[in-house]
Amino acid sequence: MNKFAVLGCGVVGSGVVELFEKNKALIEKRCGKSLEMGYILDLRDFPDRPYGNLVVKSIDPILADPDVTVVAECMGGVEPAFTFVKACLEADKSVSTSNKELVAKKGDILLAAAKAHNVNFFFEASVGGAIPIIRPMHKCLAANDFSAVSGILNGTTNFILNKMICDNMDFDTALKLAQELGYAEKDPTADVEGHDACRKICILSSLAFGKHVYPDAVFTKGIREVDLTDVKLCSMLGYAIKLIAQVKKLENGKILPTVMPMAVQGDNLLSQVNGVFNAVMTDTDGADRSLFYGRGAGKFPTASAVLGDMIEQVQLDGTISAQTWEASDNADFIEDYAAFTAKRYFRTTAADAATLTEVLGTLGERTVSTEEGETVCIAETEMNAAQVDAAVKALAQKGVQVLAQYPILL
Amino acid sequence: MNKFAVLGCGVVGSGVVELFEKNKALIEKRCGKSLEMGYILDLRDFPDRPYGNLVVKSIDPILADPDVTVVAECMGGVEPAFTFVKACLEADKSVSTSNKELVAKKGDILLAAAKAHNVNFFFEASVGGAIPIIRPMHKCLAANDFSAVSGILNGTTNFILNKMICDNMDFDTALKLAQELGYAEKDPTADVEGHDACRKICILSSLAFGKHVYPDAVFTKGIREVDLTDVKLCSMLGYAIKLIAQVKKLENGKILPTVMPMAVQGDNLLSQVNGVFNAVMTDTDGADRSLFYGRGAGKFPTASAVLGDMIEQVQLDGTISAQTWEASDNADFIEDYAAFTAKRYFRTTAADAATLTEVLGTLGERTVSTEEGETVCIAETEMNAAQVDAAVKALAQKGVQVLAQYPILL
Repeated sequence: MNKFAVLGCGVVGSGVVELFEKNKALIEKRCGKSLEMGYILDLRDFPDRPYGNLVVKSIDPILADPDVTVVAECMGGVEPAFTFVKACLEADKSVSTSNKELVAKKGDILLAAAKAHNVNFFFEASVGGAIPIIRPMHKCLAANDFSAVSGILNGTTNFILNKMICDNMDFDTALKLAQELGYAEKDPTADVEGHDACRKICILSSLAFGKHVYPDAVFTKGIREVDLTDVKLCSMLGYAIKLIAQVKKLENGKILPTVMPMAVQGDNLLSQVNGVFNAVMTDTDGADRSLFYGRGAGKFPTASAVLGDMIEQVQLDGTISAQTWEASDNADFIEDYAAFTAKRYFRTTAADAATLTEVLGTLGERTVSTEEGETVCIAETEMNAAQVDAAVKALAQKGVQVLAQYPILL
Repeated sequence: MNKFAVLGCGVVGSGVVELFEKNKALIEKRCGKSLEMGYILDLRDFPDRPYGNLVVKSIDPILADPDVTVVAECMGGVEPAFTFVKACLEADKSVSTSNKELVAKKGDILLAAAKAHNVNFFFEASVGGAIPIIRPMHKCLAANDFSAVSGILNGTTNFILNKMICDNMDFDTALKLAQELGYAEKDPTADVEGHDACRKICILSSLAFGKHVYPDAVFTKGIREVDLTDVKLCSMLGYAIKLIAQVKKLENGKILPTVMPMAVQGDNLLSQVNGVFNAVMTDTDGADRSLFYGRGAGKFPTASAVLGDMIEQVQLDGTISAQTWEASDNADFIEDYAAFTAKRYFRTTAADAATLTEVLGTLGERTVSTEEGETVCIAETEMNAAQVDAAVKALAQKGVQVLAQYPILL
């Protein structure tokens, strides 16, 4: 008999419980086995809900019950989630989690514990919510060498940028609206400063390249400084400013993960990902470019991903031996942000094309002078941060001030 | 020891061989086990290629070798592929295939054979080439009840329609170009008439709803009659004409699969899928809307999907017991096309809005009169085919001829 336990009955945990109840017959058919809800661990009581009798206040009865083969961790945060998940794995129970912070910070340890105990640690829900991305990258694209993974991995910031682009709202107004609609938290720091997207690109980087990438090794810049002027002018040139979490494999074999606002070229589907939706784009040697799109958060979308993992765990006997990545010394594996190069969007005080070309090299097709006496252009030559700084200084010497610049995502 | 065999060394088969050779170290790491190329079954010899010594002319040595645990079928067509694949499964070897005709016509039999012999029949490459779609639908979305699956599943027709939209080419010129570029075959019937897309939506329908959907049960209409005029006018109204393969679950519990040109609304990402790329969109109760995009065909993209399956087969011990669908009596399961309803795009001879509204009901925001004295509009009321026929007759009585109509995909 297979029973499952849910750790944490907040938004995601209650979604798991409710989606399971709704689709139980269908889920058991797809499991090929019966599956029962056994325990819900939460500090609160839920006397009014049909599953109130399953609530426990301690992990111990879950660990002690041999019928519990699968555990859904929906608590969030590193502790006590880490302690509980590790204990479950060591008690020979597979775990499925929606907790990106846990995976980004402790994934290597938990994957090793799962392997040692012939069970699985799954985390489809930790990146992109409902979007199937972990399993597609890990299994469907397993024959491929990855060259890049780029994504819109945070719905809150995408919603804010979208409101700026489409409704001409400035950042603060858009953030307030996102908070009113429940898309942004009262303290929006993790979203707005890019930390949430950072955790997710750590997970995708570890998966694609086989070694753990820790959040503090990733250059991370949020969207707080994104100016409505640039959003509009970029859009005129055919680009959309998005918060892009990306990892690229460089020619020296190192990888370079970054989180920052980028100007996404209009024919790249990521430029069309609007509202709270998320998307992940992969570039590989065999499959070329693929894209995965869907709801990046929310009660049932996230529950859908947690339950998908649980269904596979019930189908499987034993660990997927290759489902692991190594701990890593980031210094040998991860390139410094100084090596990041890209074409660039520039907004400057009034400047003629000759001056801009002299400093920036070849310019894109359209250079636009605005009514406010500013100039925007695309520098077609790839530049790193130091080269951008040098260009800013060179332009200043010619009387042209750089007001903003964004790297381009092609 | 795990060895694999490749049946058919044409475009896809040679792609499997070459991508495996290129990424062997990485693939073995992801398998968690060693994997060797054992046999290539082909009627031709390949004396100049490094793997020429592995070529065999008969399936027998492959069936007889107990080290062969995985077989890649890349022959195409129903026979002899069906006989060979069935024999492999019955000899306890898992099979991965890129052959959509085989899966669409014989999938239920082969899935049952795999299950009976505790091995797997995988077919990620049979739909959408490199796009991970089978495993995401089957595993990641396994907790969901599907309400619709819609896709652009044929790259050739998408390339042709795209050339019509973007380069103002008529159908025959675009088809000729596709043939010159190697995207369309000399006999383009299977692509142009929708048969290829039909096989693929059969596979996705069977997977989503658990019973085999055979190609002859699917209403299928190709793109041969798509007029450049409508492509252009639709685009003016904010829609893109695409060959859409779709299956919907109706309120009566039956499903309704169709393949036909539809006018896709501009904010649906499917309208942005250009060139030879494919995409699949799923609508489910938990995950809501998801989209999967990538290269739908080609040597390495298809090989990527075949090898992804093979890697999972090497990781696994035994069958995935739920990886199956039942044979079906289509009559009880599949609704007739007569029940298909949608909003519609209409192109008529010159007509005033009052007349059109009287017959078609509420019209979309824009009704356009063209320089050629024609009128185009969107009928917002959903109509089935019989209602469209009645509307055509009613308009004729008022002196308005319907020149074209397309169902809308929102």
